[in-house]
Amino acid sequence: MPNVVIVGATGAVGQEFLKILTERRFPVDELRLLATKRSAGKRISWQGREMTVEEATHDSFKGMDIALFAGGSSSTEFARSAVAGGATVIDNSSAFRLDPDVPLVVPEVNPEDIRWHKGIIANPNCSTILMVVALKPIYDLAGIRRVVVSTYQAVSGAGREGIEELENQLKAWAEGADSVSRVFPYQIAFNLIPRIDVFQEGDYTKEEWKMVKETQKIFHAPGMRVTATTVRVPVLRSHSEALNVETEKKVSVAEVRAALSKAPGIVVVDDPGRDRYPMPLDCADTDQVSVGRIREDFTVEAGFNLWLAGDQIRKGAATNAVQIAELLLK
Amino acid sequence: MPNVVIVGATGAVGQEFLKILTERRFPVDELRLLATKRSAGKRISWQGREMTVEEATHDSFKGMDIALFAGGSSSTEFARSAVAGGATVIDNSSAFRLDPDVPLVVPEVNPEDIRWHKGIIANPNCSTILMVVALKPIYDLAGIRRVVVSTYQAVSGAGREGIEELENQLKAWAEGADSVSRVFPYQIAFNLIPRIDVFQEGDYTKEEWKMVKETQKIFHAPGMRVTATTVRVPVLRSHSEALNVETEKKVSVAEVRAALSKAPGIVVVDDPGRDRYPMPLDCADTDQVSVGRIREDFTVEAGFNLWLAGDQIRKGAATNAVQIAELLLK
Repeated sequence: MPNVVIVGATGAVGQEFLKILTERRFPVDELRLLATKRSAGKRISWQGREMTVEEATHDSFKGMDIALFAGGSSSTEFARSAVAGGATVIDNSSAFRLDPDVPLVVPEVNPEDIRWHKGIIANPNCSTILMVVALKPIYDLAGIRRVVVSTYQAVSGAGREGIEELENQLKAWAEGADSVSRVFPYQIAFNLIPRIDVFQEGDYTKEEWKMVKETQKIFHAPGMRVTATTVRVPVLRSHSEALNVETEKKVSVAEVRAALSKAPGIVVVDDPGRDRYPMPLDCADTDQVSVGRIREDFTVEAGFNLWLAGDQIRKGAATNAVQIAELLLK
Repeated sequence: MPNVVIVGATGAVGQEFLKILTERRFPVDELRLLATKRSAGKRISWQGREMTVEEATHDSFKGMDIALFAGGSSSTEFARSAVAGGATVIDNSSAFRLDPDVPLVVPEVNPEDIRWHKGIIANPNCSTILMVVALKPIYDLAGIRRVVVSTYQAVSGAGREGIEELENQLKAWAEGADSVSRVFPYQIAFNLIPRIDVFQEGDYTKEEWKMVKETQKIFHAPGMRVTATTVRVPVLRSHSEALNVETEKKVSVAEVRAALSKAPGIVVVDDPGRDRYPMPLDCADTDQVSVGRIREDFTVEAGFNLWLAGDQIRKGAATNAVQIAELLLK
C-alpha cells in the first residue's frame, strides 16, 4: 500500500481529499498531512487515526509514494522536492498544467496520458474538468468544431475563505450590518463578478484562458476552438456552465443524449416534462457532472446547447486527483 | 397633458412606473391607478397627490390617453378595452409582442416602429431589451451574423414576490430555518435554476424563444441567428448576460468599444486595469445598460465576447415603456 502525503490538508480541497480517500477505499499505508506554518499543529482525525498537521518543508516527502497537492503556491515551492523525495505528485495548482513535460489528466477523457509522466501529473482547472467530461462523448460521437462557454462559478473556487466570505456577507445582510469584501474584489452576495483570476492577453482572464488552453491540451487538439466568459456567482460550492457546442458531424439530440448517458462520470438530468435539469444545489457532495437542457442549436449546421453543473471541490478538484492516483496504482 | 392610467400599479413594475414618471418629468394630467380586486383600495401617494388604487374593469379606461400595463394576465383581459376606451396601450406582458399588428419597440433600436401602431405597442421581454440595446451599435457597425447568449437573471423577473422569496429564503438560512419555495420551482438561494417560463419547441423555454423571436422582430431581421440559454440567479434586481456575437464585417475591438460608447442607453464599463466591469449590484436604479468585458473572439473570422448588466425593472421594463410613451407625445 502506498504512503500518501496531502499538501494543503487544512483547506477546502485538502479536507475533501481525506473524505474521498475514505469513500473510495483508496489503499493508504502511511498518511502524512502538511500545510503552511500557520496551520501546523492542527489535529485531524481520519479513519480512527489521530494526526497532527506538519509544516511542509523540502524534507517532508521522503518515503512518500503519492503526493496530493491541494493547490496554491505550495506547489511551485515543494512539488520538485516531492518528486526528488520519490513521490509522484498530483498537483491541483495551475503551476504545471501547460508544461509540455507534465501530463494534464481527466481520467474520463485522457487516462492514457498518465503513462508519460516524469514525476508530476497536473489536475486541470475545476471549470475545465467539468466541461471536458461533458465534451468527451460529443467529441467521440461527432467531433467538435467550436465551443462557446459561459460559466457560473461558486465561491468555493476561492477555497474555504471564499465560502466564508459569501456566508458572512449574507449574515451581515440579514442583521442589517455592512458587508465586507476581502477574498473577492467586490461584494458577491446578491451580485455577479465577471472576472476570475487576473487579466491576460486580449483582456481575457487567466481563468478564461485556462478553459481554452487546458481543453486543447487534454484533447491533444491544439486547434480546438474554445472561447469562454467566466463569472463568479453567489453559490456555495458547485460550478455550472452554459455550453454552445458546434460539431463536425450532424447528429441528433437523441444521439447526443444517448452518448452522454453512457459516458463515465456523467449523469444526464434532462426531463423538461418533470421540470428536471442540473442545479448546483443538487450537485454538492457528488462526483459526477450533471448534464441537461440538451437542445439542438437551430442557428448552425450542426450544434447543441447544453447546461452542466458539478461539485467544484470534488470532481472539479479532489475527486479528479484521487482518480488519477487510482490510475497510478493500476 | 395626457391622462395616464397604470394597470398593475401595486407590483414591482407598477411602482417603478410611478418613480420614473416623476424622474423623467413626464407630463401627466389625470393619473389613474388600477390593480386586481385584491389590491383595490390601497392608498398610494404620488407627487403630493393621495390616490386610491381601483379595481381594473372594462370601463376603467374612458378618457385615458396612455395606458401603461405592468404585465401579467391583466393585459389579455383589458388591453383591448383600453384601446376601445381611447387610450394607447404600452404593454409589458408577452401577450401581443409577436402579433404582426403590434409594434415591439425599444426606443434606442427601432423608435420608428411606433408610427404604425393600432392602439397597442408592446414592450419587449426584459432580457431582450438589455441585449438589443447592446447589439444595436454593433449591428449598425458590422452587421450581426449570429449571437449566443447565456443569461444571469435576477429574481425581480418574477416581480415583487420573486424578490421576497429570495430574501425570505436567505433570512431563513441565517436563522437556521427551513427554506420555502413558492414562486420558483426550487430553492433559488445559493442556487441557479436554468429554466425560466415554460418549456416549448425543441426543449427551449419560452424565455429563450422570446430572446430569439423578439430580437428578430425588433431588428426586422427574421433570419437573424440568435440562440439562448436563460438562467435564474440569486441576484435581487438586475439581469446580466454573456454575449458571443459573430459579425458580418471584421472590425476591431476599439471600433466596437467606440460604437458602444457613443450609443444611446449604454454605458461602457470596461477597464481591466482598474478592475472595472459591469456588475448587477451597480446597476440597481439605473436606466442604462452597462457593457464591458469586450474582447475579440479568436475562434471566428469576426466576432466578440461581451458582458452586460442592466436594471431589469427599469430599462428592462418600466423605463422602456415610459420612453415609448415619450415618443408618443413627440
